[in-house]
Amino acid sequence: MDKYFSSRATVRDFRNEDVPLSLIESILEAAMRAPTCGNMQLYSVIVTREPEARRALAETHFNQPAAIGAPVILTICADFNRFSRWCRLSDAKPGYDNFLSFLTATTDAVILAQQITTIAEMEGLGTCWLGTVTYNAARISELLSLPDLVVPVAALAIGWPASTPERCERLPLEACMHLERYRDDSDAKVMELFKAKDEFGPNARFVAENGKTSLAQVFTDVRYPEAMNVEVSKALLDLLRDKKFL
Amino acid sequence: MDKYFSSRATVRDFRNEDVPLSLIESILEAAMRAPTCGNMQLYSVIVTREPEARRALAETHFNQPAAIGAPVILTICADFNRFSRWCRLSDAKPGYDNFLSFLTATTDAVILAQQITTIAEMEGLGTCWLGTVTYNAARISELLSLPDLVVPVAALAIGWPASTPERCERLPLEACMHLERYRDDSDAKVMELFKAKDEFGPNARFVAENGKTSLAQVFTDVRYPEAMNVEVSKALLDLLRDKKFL
Repeated sequence: MDKYFSSRATVRDFRNEDVPLSLIESILEAAMRAPTCGNMQLYSVIVTREPEARRALAETHFNQPAAIGAPVILTICADFNRFSRWCRLSDAKPGYDNFLSFLTATTDAVILAQQITTIAEMEGLGTCWLGTVTYNAARISELLSLPDLVVPVAALAIGWPASTPERCERLPLEACMHLERYRDDSDAKVMELFKAKDEFGPNARFVAENGKTSLAQVFTDVRYPEAMNVEVSKALLDLLRDKKFL
Repeated sequence: MDKYFSSRATVRDFRNEDVPLSLIESILEAAMRAPTCGNMQLYSVIVTREPEARRALAETHFNQPAAIGAPVILTICADFNRFSRWCRLSDAKPGYDNFLSFLTATTDAVILAQQITTIAEMEGLGTCWLGTVTYNAARISELLSLPDLVVPVAALAIGWPASTPERCERLPLEACMHLERYRDDSDAKVMELFKAKDEFGPNARFVAENGKTSLAQVFTDVRYPEAMNVEVSKALLDLLRDKKFL
């Protein structure tokens, strides 16, 4: 691992080799020193290692290779259940069944997930965030028996890398950094900022393979199309209502 | 910095000494190698260094000492504006004005903020997450001129530590880790898990100072009371509507 983790990359291809539970425990325990709102630690991590359970969980992640091949999947949840129970048992009335509390707990959970990622990679493990966690969040909640005020917000496939992953391109710093105020760039500038992305070899291949005329169309028409975003948004809001966060 | 960052702690007390912009830039650029959904990099970072702007921003954070004393405040935003503009300029129709897209961009932004935290601390800087960012998110959006599809979701006060911060207590690993399924603990177990927190010296002091009978009441009655959570939730949902994420 180089200074600042700048050579890191996502691993999707894992060796068929177990990750000991004791190692997972050390990583989680260390990651729990990451920042957390008001020291409330509004997260829970479900560790999935049993083959049958992994198969069922991988299905909710559309059977993507990283989910199928990883010996461990961690599902990191926004959790106000534990904290609220402690409040009630301490003669205090919790008021965390609302949207702010969901956002606060989500932030805590994502901070933890990123710290787990960093520490796991320092141990030589490979990690892949499964962005699909939000797509089937209700089904995942069922599989993992999540109670009210607990919602899955991040999932990590973890294992020993089978190969050295390719580092993909990133936007230049100036695209994402603004001094003092948000700077809405000119059209020409926006296109310049995305130039490296548009011209990156593998991206050009995706465009051709999908019969599109621009990389952006691969995102809007194939990978993250509006109709799907709208449908999943509705399902997510339903889940937040069901879990008492809305 | 020890192995795994397990001795880290939040810094709220900063030396009156500048953090060079070049250092901030190196940290941000390295942090931008952190995972991001579909490599879309759905975040922006607003760097606030000018004294007048810092004062105005600190006010939105209730003038907490860390916000007033830090030479730099970073406001990390969920940002689907830049990506959507690139789509439109590339003959693609973006469909990211919905709740899923807000949550996806929020996740990207929080991952980035945590990676910034880790790297800044490796450089010897101190950091303090300003959880207050959600409380006055609309006012912060105004101050920083945030356009549609851009919402502040994390804020970091950064500077050189003036003293060695105290490490606070954390829950034991078993409170937050679940094997295969969520384990809803017995009442007795919940109280046992929070025992160290209830008995931690400074926490016992807060209880006495606030005239409460339990630590949980400090959270429910003083720090994060229901009425405030409900009010901020409403304001946040209004902001998401205003910024076209809902």
